[in-house]
Amino acid sequence: MNTNPYKDITPKEVRKLIREEKITGQTSGMCAGFAQANLCILPKKYAYDFLLFCQRNQQSCPLLEVSDEGSRFLKTSASNCDIATDVPKYRVWKNGGLAGEYSDVSSFWRDDLVTFVIGCSFSFEAPLIEAGIDVRNISENHNVPMYLTNIDTNPAGIFSGKMVVSMRPIHYSQIVKATTITARVPKVHGAPIHIGSPEFIGIKDISKPDFGEASTIKEGEVPVFWCCGVTPQSVVMNSKPDFCITHAPGHMLITDIPETFLQN
Amino acid sequence: MNTNPYKDITPKEVRKLIREEKITGQTSGMCAGFAQANLCILPKKYAYDFLLFCQRNQQSCPLLEVSDEGSRFLKTSASNCDIATDVPKYRVWKNGGLAGEYSDVSSFWRDDLVTFVIGCSFSFEAPLIEAGIDVRNISENHNVPMYLTNIDTNPAGIFSGKMVVSMRPIHYSQIVKATTITARVPKVHGAPIHIGSPEFIGIKDISKPDFGEASTIKEGEVPVFWCCGVTPQSVVMNSKPDFCITHAPGHMLITDIPETFLQN
Repeated sequence: MNTNPYKDITPKEVRKLIREEKITGQTSGMCAGFAQANLCILPKKYAYDFLLFCQRNQQSCPLLEVSDEGSRFLKTSASNCDIATDVPKYRVWKNGGLAGEYSDVSSFWRDDLVTFVIGCSFSFEAPLIEAGIDVRNISENHNVPMYLTNIDTNPAGIFSGKMVVSMRPIHYSQIVKATTITARVPKVHGAPIHIGSPEFIGIKDISKPDFGEASTIKEGEVPVFWCCGVTPQSVVMNSKPDFCITHAPGHMLITDIPETFLQN
Repeated sequence: MNTNPYKDITPKEVRKLIREEKITGQTSGMCAGFAQANLCILPKKYAYDFLLFCQRNQQSCPLLEVSDEGSRFLKTSASNCDIATDVPKYRVWKNGGLAGEYSDVSSFWRDDLVTFVIGCSFSFEAPLIEAGIDVRNISENHNVPMYLTNIDTNPAGIFSGKMVVSMRPIHYSQIVKATTITARVPKVHGAPIHIGSPEFIGIKDISKPDFGEASTIKEGEVPVFWCCGVTPQSVVMNSKPDFCITHAPGHMLITDIPETFLQN
């Protein structure tokens, strides 16, 4: 069940509360039915390689929009949105290392930055719940658990690294339904990348996620894994561009795009 | 009905015949069930703008693969394929003007060229025929008719221009079926962009296509339009990069990718 207090308000209203720093936490469950998005913001000199990386890794990095160079505004994903202030928590990266976390990155903005808006699996949690599937990170009211895997992404230019996945425990009787519902929306990662055996994809301890918080796995439930838009952060750590801004895992941009609009 | 003599041979065999210049004509109906592709080959200095153009115009320019700079080979779409010889007819463009048509572009190759492999609607003609729909350009054994429309593409960097569409006449009783079948494969243009009224999209005379050859429209049939990968040629004419190689309309790269593999 989704009891998030921001479940039924509009993306525009939530972005305003985020801009005013009245919301600073993770966004799972907010604005049910609207697509949420990962950010990866890079200097133009890296933009071709990263755009190519997204083309070659579409399930991990499904692009919703790419901004014009230097622009803090978006044309199609969100109206009146300031990319530098409308996400609850950002990460600033220097040479592949985390330099800090901020609720506003205006002071870091540069005229050569290009913003990549990448679909997030939070977008399909509302239709899963509507279909009677308990989305544990929402019913337990915490960030989704995310794991670094042993799966290589397809390299492009300077960018390469391992895939990151999100996990939701699903009762064995509902796995097919969860798969078909999410397969309809490839722009927010689509169908699962793996079902059932964390060790096959290099996850040693399911109770210790690399990002986010652990979800309770109940009797009869199986861990189901989806590609995750935190993958660019794994790739940034590996490939070490001199400067990068991302969202903090789970602290997403909430777009104006209805999830149904993205369905195949 | 598909009576093309190359309907049932493999993509690898057809590419060999094309390389040997034993096949020089249009490719509709060849290698039924395998994806065919448009080419747009540009110097690296234009590659970011064009990749962004594809991201912003996915129905016109669904990318199947982007080569590494300077490489004449593909990694995922076709094995043992030489991009400079394995397409039956190429067009070389200089400053937005057509400089010539060739069956081999080896002599034009440069180390700074990047190849964009873009899905083609020929890929969904086999499943249309299997569903009992007469694909007129195949049963009449000619190139598909293509038209320049009045629909603007979404600009990116230097690239902008009007959309090109392909047309197949479909009996009114089969339009829904043709729509649902093609909607399954967005990577080869997906569902129609327009059904029924050529004048609404700027086509003045349906009997005079801008590229390819006219198809007979029979009693009870409606012209149905799909996005076309000749759009980059319209954009090249408008945006005038100093150098570009494309396929000639209808003379496609035949890939090793089964059309079913691309289905949602």
